[in-house]
Amino acid sequence: MTASFTLSLKQAWRRADSMLCVGLDPDPARLPAPLHGKADATFQFCRAIVDATADLVCAFKPQIAYFAAQRAEDQLEALIAHIHAHHPGIPVVLDAKRGDIGSTAEQYAREAFERYKADAVTVNPYMGFDSIEPWLAHAGRGVFLLCRTSNPGGADLQSLDVSQGVSQGLVGHERLYERVARLASGSWNRGGELGLVVGATVPAELARVRELAPELPLLVPGIGAQGGDVAATVQAGSSTDGTGMLINSSRAILYAGKGDDFAAAARQAALETRDAINRFRRPQP
Amino acid sequence: MTASFTLSLKQAWRRADSMLCVGLDPDPARLPAPLHGKADATFQFCRAIVDATADLVCAFKPQIAYFAAQRAEDQLEALIAHIHAHHPGIPVVLDAKRGDIGSTAEQYAREAFERYKADAVTVNPYMGFDSIEPWLAHAGRGVFLLCRTSNPGGADLQSLDVSQGVSQGLVGHERLYERVARLASGSWNRGGELGLVVGATVPAELARVRELAPELPLLVPGIGAQGGDVAATVQAGSSTDGTGMLINSSRAILYAGKGDDFAAAARQAALETRDAINRFRRPQP
Repeated sequence: MTASFTLSLKQAWRRADSMLCVGLDPDPARLPAPLHGKADATFQFCRAIVDATADLVCAFKPQIAYFAAQRAEDQLEALIAHIHAHHPGIPVVLDAKRGDIGSTAEQYAREAFERYKADAVTVNPYMGFDSIEPWLAHAGRGVFLLCRTSNPGGADLQSLDVSQGVSQGLVGHERLYERVARLASGSWNRGGELGLVVGATVPAELARVRELAPELPLLVPGIGAQGGDVAATVQAGSSTDGTGMLINSSRAILYAGKGDDFAAAARQAALETRDAINRFRRPQP
Repeated sequence: MTASFTLSLKQAWRRADSMLCVGLDPDPARLPAPLHGKADATFQFCRAIVDATADLVCAFKPQIAYFAAQRAEDQLEALIAHIHAHHPGIPVVLDAKRGDIGSTAEQYAREAFERYKADAVTVNPYMGFDSIEPWLAHAGRGVFLLCRTSNPGGADLQSLDVSQGVSQGLVGHERLYERVARLASGSWNRGGELGLVVGATVPAELARVRELAPELPLLVPGIGAQGGDVAATVQAGSSTDGTGMLINSSRAILYAGKGDDFAAAARQAALETRDAINRFRRPQP
């Protein structure tokens, strides 16, 4: 762990020449056959994926729900400790989508940063800035705010036009997710460690977020199993230096193989995804 | 546990003649002296509060962050099992404010309903209806959507005017939290087990939500430590039969006493809060 998530992410982009983030969503129903019946199968599975792909990624993103539903918090702790010990410099983004206020938010921040020792976390912005502030008190840790999510229902609230009667001088419309991007890129970004979660399924919206938040790291789910187009995603979301994104793939990598070869198959899928991303990256400086 | 959260809540309102919900937010820094140093102090503290107040409440609301930050998930499981075993019929609302999609949301629902055996849960609506649907697959369990939260920053997004260019025939404005209330009271409420979280700090907004969602149970934090006014809250949020709310108090009850008398002090505080609420309730049918 370095003193700044943003800095360690920039180093990881360069070191691995990669914007691929591997999502660790260990579904017990989909674990490969050799692990069936083992008490710590979840940890063993994720550790094998991590060790097989670590040189190809800019970050790992464990999803806490898959551990919590199985009463496997200890395996999540062990997994993150393994990443820090054996792959130092690769940031861990804990995908928890927490969101609460005051002393409760402080407890969630302790859970993510002190208990699990994550370098960054995903947070839901619906409760406003004072629900984000307690996370920012942990200097150097990253906070990715949900902005425009990749699911069809993401539009239900996030795409509502909020420009009415608010900003008098505003030309055109502003959607709720654009407001979140504008705030995260501006007054909310105390400490400079905010990022945004933006789905890959609508490249025009990803491009709009990049326009509103030119400097923020974007965590982008939705390629692979969710069907987003790699070329359009990279072109829409990259920052001017050809980096700026954590393009997440979970299932397409985790479950590339079903038998003894699952880790090798995951590596092959990760390699192909990284290279597909790199084919469309802007030239690096 | 009955077959329906909504039904068991209605029974609890009548049985205890109470709309008080006691929030179980066990802050390790504030536990009473007699429990200091005990390995399961969190469980013992909450159990004592539960046993001292059970006949005065319509529900208990444990806040999961306080357990997760302390690696005390087993104590939360034990606490909810204790409530179900010793105070049957009192619903447990797990305050977790989860929000995710697809298979991840299914894992969170398993965590809340299968692992912890909560009767209802709080959920963040920012990701839209398909993030709520997996919870509704658990028939008879309640889901409280965040609507208008009691913190000052709640207005940052929730109070934005979303009426622009959406509903042509709409008279006046519609705020984001009003849209959430309207959807939760309408097309989103498949199964009839939705409720809303609405803060007590702005009674006019609570009244507006009650108008938009006349039948939905409202979980109302913000009285007591957060300063909301009991009379205004009850008048603004009650349904026509004088029930309809879970008025939550956490710190003012949990930490009413600091020494050996903490449970008795909590009971006294709960009794006074219940009676204060009842003074302002509309006549029951």
